Amino acid sequence: MNLNTLFNPQSIAIIGASRDKEKLGYQILNNIRSGGYRGKIFPINLKAETIDGLEAFKSVKDAKEKIDLAVIVIPAKFVLSEIRNCADAGIKNLVIISAGFSETDAEGKKAEEEIRKIAAEFGLNILGPNCLGFINSYNDLNLTFAKTPPFLPHLPKESRQGRVAIISQSGAIESAVLDWFGDKNFGFSYFISIGNAAVLDENDFFEFLAQDKNTDLIIAYLEEIKDGQRFMEVVSRLSRLKPFAVLKAGRTKAGKIAALSHTGSLAGSDEAIMTGLRRSGAVILEKLEDIFNLTRLAARPAKIKDNNIYIVSNAGGPLVLTTDELEKNNLPLGKFSSVLEKELKTKLSEIKNIHNPFDIIGDATADRYQRALETILADKNINNVLVLLTPQTTTEIEKTAEVISALGKKYAQKLICASFIGGDSLAKGKKILEKNFIPSFDYPEQAVRAMAQMIGYQISKNNIQIYKNNLDSRRQIAPACAGRDGSKQAIIKNKQLNYLKSFELIKKYGIKTVDNKIIKCEKDLNTLKYPIALKAVGEKIIHKTDKNLIALNLKNASEAKKAFGKFKSVLKQEGNYCLAQTMIGEGREMIVGFKRDEFFGPIIMAGAGGIYTEILKDTQTEIDDIDLPRVMKMIEKLKSYKILSGTRGQKSYDVKALAQAIVSVARLAREHSEIQELDINPLFVTRKGIIAADVRIIT
Amino acid sequence: MNLNTLFNPQSIAIIGASRDKEKLGYQILNNIRSGGYRGKIFPINLKAETIDGLEAFKSVKDAKEKIDLAVIVIPAKFVLSEIRNCADAGIKNLVIISAGFSETDAEGKKAEEEIRKIAAEFGLNILGPNCLGFINSYNDLNLTFAKTPPFLPHLPKESRQGRVAIISQSGAIESAVLDWFGDKNFGFSYFISIGNAAVLDENDFFEFLAQDKNTDLIIAYLEEIKDGQRFMEVVSRLSRLKPFAVLKAGRTKAGKIAALSHTGSLAGSDEAIMTGLRRSGAVILEKLEDIFNLTRLAARPAKIKDNNIYIVSNAGGPLVLTTDELEKNNLPLGKFSSVLEKELKTKLSEIKNIHNPFDIIGDATADRYQRALETILADKNINNVLVLLTPQTTTEIEKTAEVISALGKKYAQKLICASFIGGDSLAKGKKILEKNFIPSFDYPEQAVRAMAQMIGYQISKNNIQIYKNNLDSRRQIAPACAGRDGSKQAIIKNKQLNYLKSFELIKKYGIKTVDNKIIKCEKDLNTLKYPIALKAVGEKIIHKTDKNLIALNLKNASEAKKAFGKFKSVLKQEGNYCLAQTMIGEGREMIVGFKRDEFFGPIIMAGAGGIYTEILKDTQTEIDDIDLPRVMKMIEKLKSYKILSGTRGQKSYDVKALAQAIVSVARLAREHSEIQELDINPLFVTRKGIIAADVRIIT
Repeated sequence: MNLNTLFNPQSIAIIGASRDKEKLGYQILNNIRSGGYRGKIFPINLKAETIDGLEAFKSVKDAKEKIDLAVIVIPAKFVLSEIRNCADAGIKNLVIISAGFSETDAEGKKAEEEIRKIAAEFGLNILGPNCLGFINSYNDLNLTFAKTPPFLPHLPKESRQGRVAIISQSGAIESAVLDWFGDKNFGFSYFISIGNAAVLDENDFFEFLAQDKNTDLIIAYLEEIKDGQRFMEVVSRLSRLKPFAVLKAGRTKAGKIAALSHTGSLAGSDEAIMTGLRRSGAVILEKLEDIFNLTRLAARPAKIKDNNIYIVSNAGGPLVLTTDELEKNNLPLGKFSSVLEKELKTKLSEIKNIHNPFDIIGDATADRYQRALETILADKNINNVLVLLTPQTTTEIEKTAEVISALGKKYAQKLICASFIGGDSLAKGKKILEKNFIPSFDYPEQAVRAMAQMIGYQISKNNIQIYKNNLDSRRQIAPACAGRDGSKQAIIKNKQLNYLKSFELIKKYGIKTVDNKIIKCEKDLNTLKYPIALKAVGEKIIHKTDKNLIALNLKNASEAKKAFGKFKSVLKQEGNYCLAQTMIGEGREMIVGFKRDEFFGPIIMAGAGGIYTEILKDTQTEIDDIDLPRVMKMIEKLKSYKILSGTRGQKSYDVKALAQAIVSVARLAREHSEIQELDINPLFVTRKGIIAADVRIIT
Repeated sequence: MNLNTLFNPQSIAIIGASRDKEKLGYQILNNIRSGGYRGKIFPINLKAETIDGLEAFKSVKDAKEKIDLAVIVIPAKFVLSEIRNCADAGIKNLVIISAGFSETDAEGKKAEEEIRKIAAEFGLNILGPNCLGFINSYNDLNLTFAKTPPFLPHLPKESRQGRVAIISQSGAIESAVLDWFGDKNFGFSYFISIGNAAVLDENDFFEFLAQDKNTDLIIAYLEEIKDGQRFMEVVSRLSRLKPFAVLKAGRTKAGKIAALSHTGSLAGSDEAIMTGLRRSGAVILEKLEDIFNLTRLAARPAKIKDNNIYIVSNAGGPLVLTTDELEKNNLPLGKFSSVLEKELKTKLSEIKNIHNPFDIIGDATADRYQRALETILADKNINNVLVLLTPQTTTEIEKTAEVISALGKKYAQKLICASFIGGDSLAKGKKILEKNFIPSFDYPEQAVRAMAQMIGYQISKNNIQIYKNNLDSRRQIAPACAGRDGSKQAIIKNKQLNYLKSFELIKKYGIKTVDNKIIKCEKDLNTLKYPIALKAVGEKIIHKTDKNLIALNLKNASEAKKAFGKFKSVLKQEGNYCLAQTMIGEGREMIVGFKRDEFFGPIIMAGAGGIYTEILKDTQTEIDDIDLPRVMKMIEKLKSYKILSGTRGQKSYDVKALAQAIVSVARLAREHSEIQELDINPLFVTRKGIIAADVRIIT
């Protein structure tokens, strides 16, 4: 799919162009022209002969010239026929602004389905419907109807043409971000509102932006991810090239309901999505302000070399708070070398305590900031500097901003950020910083978070493995992706696989299990090797522990018979039977399993098992394409890892065997499309090897 | 201690008043006069006859009139003699702005000690030294040298006289907050910079502000709490009257080091401080911006009645994010009653989905906001409303701000907040909100956090128990509080109490323990009842598990002898010996103990024990004045509580006996001042009763 012509059309038809300033058809035409677009424009209007001085046409077919792109801004009911007109006229790229499709009602859903069909038939690239449009800053093309001036002709190019692409599933978020850009001195590369994504979806745009030479950072706001597996493929590839940050909304239960109600979108399981995002190497944002703060940071195209942070501040309190925040974000404070320390002692003889974080004291003038920063930045091992300032008696706000700006230019490769903390008196200083592309934040904690996000990405990006969406079996298995309307939810049959068959299946994958012996009557209990566990099992029995259908640690036949007696009423029911299992004497109880996610495929899970499973919630998840090294990392992240690996002088457990079992479960998940959910719990990890004591499989 | 005259002096002497505009002695005089102070002012200056048109005096003694307060702004070396002059002249209240005391060097520390002595001798109230001064808005008294106009005479009184008192241990934070207030339309009641707190400390001011009728909310920035026990007494009392919020800096290891270096203050153990803050009912802030956001919220003196939040928004995406944030902050979304729903359907017939959170769709005009909000606010069961707005095509920003403002006046008792999200285009709208005391936030997540903080406090304030600092034994015990200079750190002797004596001690407090039998030679092992545990103990042995000096579950004499053999080399060392203990067959392993904090006294701890202690970190802490109901709450907060109380059909353990043991440990802590640290781990909680299997006591 080549989106180059969509974003760089030589000629544009505006279907629904209007003279009425209140209409979107006017606003779009006006935005295109005032933005400085240099291609041809064909207003399409049934009545007008000219619009805004341009010749108008009744239909795209009348234009008789090659049209690269058509924007459609007419009521929903007329849209389908106009798409066909465009197809007939050979127009391959469309932007459908019009709303009234799947986000409204059943009829709208049907019409959107029709759009999809026509697009497939004629090979059309369609953005929308129900979107704000897009902006391509590097081609001076503002194809949105946004009222606020997002693309300011009065700003110099280097200010409006930024290196960050913004892509959003919410028009309101786009409006807010566009409005915010309006008074900033840095811009963006692309701005894409994807609307209902009937044809082109987020993944198509990510793929396009991955290759775009004007885009260094992609920030996405998403409420759902339609095709999780393609997402992982596209984003893991992309993330090896440039940072991809995403704010995923609808992560909580209440948030999901809110998202469903306002867009009809199914947010999907948060656990699966977060596992998929981590797998893709995405920078995961947590709050709306993260979008803005990361954009601020990206205004400065610094080369990140390490994660050591250096702080220079005229304010002790904020310096302490910033240091706290660094530790919370796992960013280390760098140490001044003895050479640098000596240098600073000479250059700043008025300061007693020379160390990082560097408190240059409340009476610091711009000159003192200059001496401190110049000396520190000259150290070639120092790459990340955060400057703090609060307005005190002798503080020279604007002059200090100039100092930072000049050093920012001189040390263009270093990450230099600032936080001037206070009120209106700082506004001018902050503007100076912004004008000079020094990322400036209202509060130091915001600076630290943004730095942590970007630095964290940069120093680990080479470890991102490209996800290959070519595991055919997995693809087959996953229920068809639900449309944004949520109509095609997979119906989970929720049928439990026969207990003994479940054991047989995992055995086939090399996972050792306890021996099961069917107990039909009391005397079967006489010949066993004790201690044993007795379990009543059956297709309809799911929580054996809760229902007292497990008796553990039975030391002899008499104890076993007593337990067996208690099961009797349950065992009378059709399909239920009793099993005896040898007790596992040693080892840590773990859980290993997977859940098949509709959007991301099997999500592999491992963690503390037994009765601790739901209480400690010490589990880690991964995507099913895991290998041993990734599984080891997964296990190492568990709190229980300290126990497994032999904490406090204790012998270690067989972590490698556990890892191998997890890899096997992932293979099982890929190869058994019919299985929705599998839990081995407890899986005993012993000093040597593992042994599964219970398995539950849902098909 | 009565601080009324300090804050409301009828006459002020400025020792060090100056004509030189660059000097603090000028700036203070100028701030006092331009702020509108109506009392008498006596500039004290060795040379000048008049300053700024006022008669100047060589000494306070020359003034020959009653002086309520003296401000000292002269070099440190002259300060002591001037304090004595003041004392001689009968001046009881002093503000020492001058720096150069304990924050600098040993000499400074000595001088500060001298200040303390003089104050004690003459009964002086002294704020400072090394502080910014204070402001009392309701008395038009700006006694700071802050350059930025913190106390704006051009603003109407209702704007500069707010209901929040700000108190800070950092001058830089004060400067930033003052600067920020400069362009806000709401003010504060008191603004107090406590500096080195040589005489009056934070607790004295909290006590004063608790009684102040102009203060509804106290916000403190603290780097250390000098007297934790008095803090708890003062703040728990205060918190029953009005909210007290605190931002504690230096919470991480790196942050503590930074704090120590810049103020010489010992931040103390974060765990102890947080336990003390929770005990006091304080609202715990996490970030610098929380100070500003809570101040914004406090500008509207709403009556909080419940915690149900209602959202009205023209923006779907932000609404989803806000809903996510509500859930994260444990704030529930309210539900529209069927009556209200019907009403809204009539009043907003253009909106299909009527429910909370209420999406009034991207094309919402001010009129639609009006209809939605008016209808919702008219519902007497709805008390907390958050309005969201992003600038879209038909959005009427200022008009909508007016609508919200008018309704804010009409429903003055309700908490109405707003977040207009975007850039400069919103500035005017935001100013309208601010002018009308509608708390307005840049991002909705900020609004939610501030609402959660205030609502959380209001709905639980009646549960705050007043802490009584009258447990004499505890008082005696606690090492003398370290001065801010950290000079008096308690030297912990770190001596382990004899193992068997430790058991005897907890037994005296009613805590059942395993039987210990001293094993001198192998044959002592023949007569025991198996299974047993063998332990090598001694004063210098601390981590028995790590060092393999515990052998558990020895089933017979032969196993025991083998284990005993392995201890031999250790047992040869002076003072070490071997003990046999009966194995506890059942029960959950817990830990119960305490650590004596230098500032807050004994911090009682309980949680998951055994090898899980340090891995799961499932522990809760409390102050030692606990009773059974509070201990039960403490236990219920543990993740392990689910296991203790009988999860998943299992029988429960004896939680009550555990609670009783915790109360006993607290009593022991109070009554044994010599004990620094005590751990019972594991303490087995069985189906009936508890039994301690190991104890470690450090004196």
